[in-house]
Amino acid sequence: MDYDAMFKGALEALKKEGNYRIFAELEREAGAFPKAISHAAATPEEVTVWCSNDYLGMGQHPAVIDAMCETARACGTGAGGTRNISGNTHQHALLEAELADLHGKERALLFTSGYVSNWAALSTLGSRLPNAVILSDEKNHASMIEGIRHSRAGKVIWRHNDPEDLDAKLSDLPKEATPIVAFESVYSMDGDICPMEEIVEVAEKHGAMTYLDEVHAVGMYGPRGGGVSEERGLADRITLIEGTLGKAFGVVGGYITGSEALCDFIRSFASGFIFTTALPPAVAAAAQVSVAHLKRSEMERMRQRAQVKKLRARLDAMGIPHLPNDSHIIPVMIQDPVKCRMLADILMQDFGIYVQPINYPTVPKGTERLRFTPGPLHSDDDIDHLVRALETLWRQCALARAVA
Amino acid sequence: MDYDAMFKGALEALKKEGNYRIFAELEREAGAFPKAISHAAATPEEVTVWCSNDYLGMGQHPAVIDAMCETARACGTGAGGTRNISGNTHQHALLEAELADLHGKERALLFTSGYVSNWAALSTLGSRLPNAVILSDEKNHASMIEGIRHSRAGKVIWRHNDPEDLDAKLSDLPKEATPIVAFESVYSMDGDICPMEEIVEVAEKHGAMTYLDEVHAVGMYGPRGGGVSEERGLADRITLIEGTLGKAFGVVGGYITGSEALCDFIRSFASGFIFTTALPPAVAAAAQVSVAHLKRSEMERMRQRAQVKKLRARLDAMGIPHLPNDSHIIPVMIQDPVKCRMLADILMQDFGIYVQPINYPTVPKGTERLRFTPGPLHSDDDIDHLVRALETLWRQCALARAVA
Repeated sequence: MDYDAMFKGALEALKKEGNYRIFAELEREAGAFPKAISHAAATPEEVTVWCSNDYLGMGQHPAVIDAMCETARACGTGAGGTRNISGNTHQHALLEAELADLHGKERALLFTSGYVSNWAALSTLGSRLPNAVILSDEKNHASMIEGIRHSRAGKVIWRHNDPEDLDAKLSDLPKEATPIVAFESVYSMDGDICPMEEIVEVAEKHGAMTYLDEVHAVGMYGPRGGGVSEERGLADRITLIEGTLGKAFGVVGGYITGSEALCDFIRSFASGFIFTTALPPAVAAAAQVSVAHLKRSEMERMRQRAQVKKLRARLDAMGIPHLPNDSHIIPVMIQDPVKCRMLADILMQDFGIYVQPINYPTVPKGTERLRFTPGPLHSDDDIDHLVRALETLWRQCALARAVA
Repeated sequence: MDYDAMFKGALEALKKEGNYRIFAELEREAGAFPKAISHAAATPEEVTVWCSNDYLGMGQHPAVIDAMCETARACGTGAGGTRNISGNTHQHALLEAELADLHGKERALLFTSGYVSNWAALSTLGSRLPNAVILSDEKNHASMIEGIRHSRAGKVIWRHNDPEDLDAKLSDLPKEATPIVAFESVYSMDGDICPMEEIVEVAEKHGAMTYLDEVHAVGMYGPRGGGVSEERGLADRITLIEGTLGKAFGVVGGYITGSEALCDFIRSFASGFIFTTALPPAVAAAAQVSVAHLKRSEMERMRQRAQVKKLRARLDAMGIPHLPNDSHIIPVMIQDPVKCRMLADILMQDFGIYVQPINYPTVPKGTERLRFTPGPLHSDDDIDHLVRALETLWRQCALARAVA
């Protein structure tokens, strides 16, 4: 078999439907974020990044950078092994304690990424809990879907953010089932926030475990950045809270928090935790400083909310359609992969604005969008420049405007 | 259901059979490796690490540390997004070019870890190649096993390092099968090296794709650290070479290398690549410097081999049984999880020697061992101290000695 021909054929099909991905090559500039250098053109150019998940700019916070550099100088660049075999460092212990405290849980457990934390925790729970059935919100992230799939546990999909449907589906389960309700607080691509209290109440009524992904919320919601579950005073009613260190905390890595027994169980049985090199101590130290900072400081969150509000108001004033939601994510719907890529290309080339076109498989086909994530470091001038560029494009391209 | 009671029950069972894991908490000391501070006792103590996968001490190489710190200062601590959405940086591009060159391949693709690279690449190939059947060496790593399992492709296990058995099993496949032969160069826990040329010849005879895991070999074998496939001049005959940045290269992360079309295919379809935050640019920069250094410098490899040879000779002279192999890994077999833990505890407490007891599920039950990985930075005095400690223990514990 000619493997390369098969690969090329599959890639050609992607290209034809407009879903072939071209990565923008950036050079981040600490101190200048959200400005970055784009290596897309022949000569590198400065652009403004409008689609980063470094939501609060913590990736350039001097204390976070200092922690990474000081720890790298003191301890070196890698952990040197799995957590079990020489890779468990003091910095991992400190970070796990910081994260358990963030969510008011007994314990936390680190993973190499948020993806791996979802995949490993759900696949372990699903495969090892007797008669496990995972009730999964239909818009859950790929990492949760793959974890559930890998577990080979029973799987029931419930309608997105619909506690009534969840209730009905929990009622339909056989008596001997062990139900796990898996959902997210802030959904990444639509930016909508779940009706958490209702979901928790339904789960409690049925004695189901709750598994909550807060990756787009940690650091950003709640008085200490503990996520939507902290903001709404529900963290102690949720069995497992999963989060990331790679978005608002500005570094990399993922984690779960929960009871001592739960975390020890995942630690002891999850293949994706056991058989992988630990995060570098320098990464753990940087993340710990970032988490601790956002526990104390409200400034970043307040300023971010102000900038989100400003951009939304300006888009509304111009009649540029964007999905309404209560989060920091502003999706401007284009609904065509080729147009979406074209708009993003023009924004980059003509206006120095970088926003990645979001296409399949990240969102369903036909729901392609530009996803803007204003942060505390976007200036009013940045917003003004973005809005003017969009207005020009919308006029030129005769894109559908929302009915006023 | 009382979930916590279920978790506790499972953990109790682990404890009873001696397989409950207790992590040693270390503080690595750049410049002093393999010395580290152990936080196990009431007061932190200096220990010598004998089980690190930072095989060449590159995690404390000044140029590697400088690259991490300089890039963190210049670009911040995180990538801020997936490779597709704002997380693709210049440092990732440079590292991928460095890795493609290391293995003489057209292209390389980075993952957040070696585990994820195996899991994502094998699950994508297995699920998307028509009629894929993965022929997996029976001792393959957990990350490969989980990737194959996740793909739901056909799976055939062949006897460890046995090209004849592989040949027979390939011959048994139906005509329409698309065979992928998955194997490792250096097997982590036994330290044995595969008969690569024979395996490649068998695969070629049957037109099978070859998938080679070189995680315990990259940086260490071959004149430029390209692994056993470079050492034996076979890299160009292998379809896909997978490696890690977290062992001999001293940082963290994983990768695959292969043809342009193969890497682009995995980049375009692998969930575990697409839906995860990219490695920090500072990590990529550090890894790139480490890979480049070990392409030029033979000193680390030569010195490591000398120290491995010395330790083996001393163990032989004392009649302490260890698995023979051609690699840098020295497994001293204990074959009982409780004894293995006890020996490791005494070595740590009484002698300041840290070697993690290796137990199930890392190795099969009944094959528990102490796994020593001498490196270029272990001094002759370190070896002497280790050997004297082992001699004392072997005498005290009346452990079986190998027949001379």
